[in-house]
Amino acid sequence: MSKLAGLYVPNIVPLDEEGGIKEDELRRYVDWLIHMGVDGLYPNGSSGEFTRFTPEERRRIVKIVCDQAAGRVPVLAGAAEANPRETIKACEAYAEYGARAVAIVSPFYYRLSPDGVFAYFAEIAKNAPIDVTLYNIPMFASPIDVPTIQRLSEFGRIIGIKDSSGDMAFMLRMIRAVRVSRPNFSFLSGWDAALVPMLLMGCDGGTNALTGVIPEFMTTMYVAVREMQIDKAREMQFRLLDLFDAIVYGADFPEGLRVAVELRGFDMGLSRQPLTEGQKAAREELRETISCLIDHPMCKRQ
Amino acid sequence: MSKLAGLYVPNIVPLDEEGGIKEDELRRYVDWLIHMGVDGLYPNGSSGEFTRFTPEERRRIVKIVCDQAAGRVPVLAGAAEANPRETIKACEAYAEYGARAVAIVSPFYYRLSPDGVFAYFAEIAKNAPIDVTLYNIPMFASPIDVPTIQRLSEFGRIIGIKDSSGDMAFMLRMIRAVRVSRPNFSFLSGWDAALVPMLLMGCDGGTNALTGVIPEFMTTMYVAVREMQIDKAREMQFRLLDLFDAIVYGADFPEGLRVAVELRGFDMGLSRQPLTEGQKAAREELRETISCLIDHPMCKRQ
Amino acid sequence: MSKLAGLYVPNIVPLDEEGGIKEDELRRYVDWLIHMGVDGLYPNGSSGEFTRFTPEERRRIVKIVCDQAAGRVPVLAGAAEANPRETIKACEAYAEYGARAVAIVSPFYYRLSPDGVFAYFAEIAKNAPIDVTLYNIPMFASPIDVPTIQRLSEFGRIIGIKDSSGDMAFMLRMIRAVRVSRPNFSFLSGWDAALVPMLLMGCDGGTNALTGVIPEFMTTMYVAVREMQIDKAREMQFRLLDLFDAIVYGADFPEGLRVAVELRGFDMGLSRQPLTEGQKAAREELRETISCLIDHPMCKRQ
Amino acid sequence: MSKLAGLYVPNIVPLDEEGGIKEDELRRYVDWLIHMGVDGLYPNGSSGEFTRFTPEERRRIVKIVCDQAAGRVPVLAGAAEANPRETIKACEAYAEYGARAVAIVSPFYYRLSPDGVFAYFAEIAKNAPIDVTLYNIPMFASPIDVPTIQRLSEFGRIIGIKDSSGDMAFMLRMIRAVRVSRPNFSFLSGWDAALVPMLLMGCDGGTNALTGVIPEFMTTMYVAVREMQIDKAREMQFRLLDLFDAIVYGADFPEGLRVAVELRGFDMGLSRQPLTEGQKAAREELRETISCLIDHPMCKRQ
Repeated sequence: MSKLAGLYVPNIVPLDEEGGIKEDELRRYVDWLIHMGVDGLYPNGSSGEFTRFTPEERRRIVKIVCDQAAGRVPVLAGAAEANPRETIKACEAYAEYGARAVAIVSPFYYRLSPDGVFAYFAEIAKNAPIDVTLYNIPMFASPIDVPTIQRLSEFGRIIGIKDSSGDMAFMLRMIRAVRVSRPNFSFLSGWDAALVPMLLMGCDGGTNALTGVIPEFMTTMYVAVREMQIDKAREMQFRLLDLFDAIVYGADFPEGLRVAVELRGFDMGLSRQPLTEGQKAAREELRETISCLIDHPMCKRQ
Repeated sequence: MSKLAGLYVPNIVPLDEEGGIKEDELRRYVDWLIHMGVDGLYPNGSSGEFTRFTPEERRRIVKIVCDQAAGRVPVLAGAAEANPRETIKACEAYAEYGARAVAIVSPFYYRLSPDGVFAYFAEIAKNAPIDVTLYNIPMFASPIDVPTIQRLSEFGRIIGIKDSSGDMAFMLRMIRAVRVSRPNFSFLSGWDAALVPMLLMGCDGGTNALTGVIPEFMTTMYVAVREMQIDKAREMQFRLLDLFDAIVYGADFPEGLRVAVELRGFDMGLSRQPLTEGQKAAREELRETISCLIDHPMCKRQ
Repeated sequence: MSKLAGLYVPNIVPLDEEGGIKEDELRRYVDWLIHMGVDGLYPNGSSGEFTRFTPEERRRIVKIVCDQAAGRVPVLAGAAEANPRETIKACEAYAEYGARAVAIVSPFYYRLSPDGVFAYFAEIAKNAPIDVTLYNIPMFASPIDVPTIQRLSEFGRIIGIKDSSGDMAFMLRMIRAVRVSRPNFSFLSGWDAALVPMLLMGCDGGTNALTGVIPEFMTTMYVAVREMQIDKAREMQFRLLDLFDAIVYGADFPEGLRVAVELRGFDMGLSRQPLTEGQKAAREELRETISCLIDHPMCKRQ
Repeated sequence: MSKLAGLYVPNIVPLDEEGGIKEDELRRYVDWLIHMGVDGLYPNGSSGEFTRFTPEERRRIVKIVCDQAAGRVPVLAGAAEANPRETIKACEAYAEYGARAVAIVSPFYYRLSPDGVFAYFAEIAKNAPIDVTLYNIPMFASPIDVPTIQRLSEFGRIIGIKDSSGDMAFMLRMIRAVRVSRPNFSFLSGWDAALVPMLLMGCDGGTNALTGVIPEFMTTMYVAVREMQIDKAREMQFRLLDLFDAIVYGADFPEGLRVAVELRGFDMGLSRQPLTEGQKAAREELRETISCLIDHPMCKRQ
């Protein structure tokens, strides 16, 4: 199968007033994203609040997304469960639903040693019936270091890594360590604020929250890099900084992202993580800021 | 009901070769702990690897522990689930099983703001049919700061906090902030390496991994503090440092604890987190060190 | 010579409007501190802003303090200079001025490995004509870890350590590692917010900013610990928390300490670190808070 | 005057066996660097171990470098001293010696608030008779955040910033915040491992340790970026990663850099920071690794 590349949307899940999954709205959102030209979908990521759903709900979300995508774009399904055995079962389900690959976040809560991280992914790589993408997000989960990535790249089942560290030198060290022995290994950046330089230096694509908000902008920027229109790509990178910061730092992540997607016409509802009254008021303020930034990147509201 | 106090065991779960819960061994371990004089049991804590079980398994573990304790000692049940609604359902189940209270870790994976942490616990406090203990472990989960604890202490359902930061000044600030308005609020320290000074300064007890390994030593030390035999308590505190460090830092937590409990005659089996061959060899080495330290606190093996 | 023990004042330096050292006021402050019963003086510490003076000024400060103390209390002189050779020269000068010992902060700016920290202090220990106290303050300087302290304790010239980490378990590990082979090694805590439990667990004294502000309170608290009036000591520890936090966190350290000492009747002047207009206004606010807290520990102003 | 741009060498200082400055060797090194085509010299930076010299020695170093450069390339002189007054005096001296500008590291040891950082640099900007470059190195000194940089860019005397955070998104935010109002503000990256992407995204140059070791390679890489030979520049960036890591992480910084420059034929001597016997042996090992990497970037020694 071909290398994973391009812009995947770490898509969030619309919720109703009781916190239930709004399937119709999720399907409508998937359609819109595909219509807008994104390269793939990525349910059950950090943006998708995978930890706030039950195992059954996580399966349902992937099933809906795969079903609605219907082969129009590939689906990269977040498959992390409580332990390797449960994760492998989720991999089996997602393979059956038609996902292109799974993304598995490094073990979280406990901070594991490099050996522990290796053992975890090795167990999965040996047993999963679907291609696996590693997911490194050191601010939330056990870091995956360069030697561990190199060791894990020896498993044919492991086909890439999504990195949300935002650390350029780390990305370069990873690519350097793996590309010779695995030229088809994919490197995807989850850090929107450095996406253009990551792509310029060899990343194959991204899984970026902003692709779910301003897909038209993001895909244009991606094409600009691929066509080596560097001045254009660079200016677009600068233009998205304030919007990214508002979305990521304007509220407890990923509430700002829910706000932003609402502004594109989707009824996302509130997260299952409750808000104080003060947070609800701040959310309204943030909506104004994000709205302004979506329209005018230089907007000075925030 | 009376204030939570004394030494609770954050008990681990024996597993068979397929990773299944060994119910008989868990019951035998519970009996032994009660026989050794511990003040309470605490299933589904960090030592108990709660994140590595499914929601159904977490219920089963609490059910077994409550059933086997049979009222001889109180049970503090770890009840954190994917979101407040699921957590409240677990609270309902644990109340029915006869738990004295639940302990709920601060939201993890995402790092929430103080307001987010407050909203989460407030939602639970308003709906849980059982007393709630906050669980602060900033190395793994969103920190609970002093103003947030103070605000949360206004809920009658919230009866205490377990703190595993090991930060003495933080503990003092918490006690200072809460004790006037809530004199029965419980402060439990989860940091064995500072337990005696924590108790001397006003903590009501502890939930300490070592209480599941050397309960006879820990309860003697606890009594020494309560009887103000400070020289004795201090010396005992010094004596447990190396054992604590070997258990906590000798392997990816809590594998060292599994090793240690095995040495007391229980067939704990391996964690669901897989080990590399190198880690398995290191585990055997660690067993020798821990065995030596259990017998001789000044043992120089490590 | 006897073991270093009791409460040393990390004394700050009064400055005139041009930033020059106000010698008369410094002498008056030294007299007051001695009159109030402190056990020793400690110029050129972090509270004393040693980095903001030139090498010549640092010598002058120690000379004034030693001269004014005139043997009434011992002087522990901060002697860190740009490199071991310069530090040793300062040690020679301070020995001549009559200091009891020097305190030398771990190398800062660069973060050295444990071996680097060892090599630095070993070089000084071999060449200094005066007893040396290590100074561990990991938030500002290279951390000194337990094995390094143990190795350094083999030098007769090194007679103690001042630790400002505030980490109780670390303090216990240090004491445990050194006390058998060097029973006269001194352990001083620089973390006022945990001073009582540190003393209860075996520290010999402290070098605490608050001793320079409320020496009468601090010495009474110290005596309470020594006489094992634990309830009294504990309550006093609780009472100083808010004042400590206001002084340490109320402004860029140590400006809050300058404010606090001014309130005891000394004309301290502004630091050499300039302040914005906003910071100057905040300093006036902080003065009110600290004033209130000095008088009423439960003051709710802050 | 023109914008600072291109590759500046943060040059280290050759020392004799007593730790004295080897002036002849320093002059020879300066000549070689200029001959190799570097764009400027930067004495008294972190690589130059400015903290390990006395104020008089720092002046002497700048004087030698300016004198030897003799206008052939500009000199950016590190001018941080104990406080603003002393720093301003150093600025005056360096202006007189003929330096093009000074670089001033953010206040270190104490971690200042953004307001404190602003006040410090504002004081200097108002009084220095020479252009000033800010120096942000958050691993060692108080971080300079984006709003502070923006405020400071309003001083005409402040003409640029050297950033050694290696954080790409931070660099982009800085450029975005300043470039409109100060189009001639210089952005120099001190993080060799991300230099090419930094340059591609708008940095004007770098102050990189490796430029003092392999100036021919670095200047070729710099030209490749400027000529938009991106494939070539990217490959050169990948090739320098191992050498950078060996130099920066192979020993306590900047000892690895001393080793590397020695390998280019200069008698650098040992740092004033002493080494243990183990460190000396490791230094010999490191020399072999670095030698191999200078010759063969893919060398597998390390």
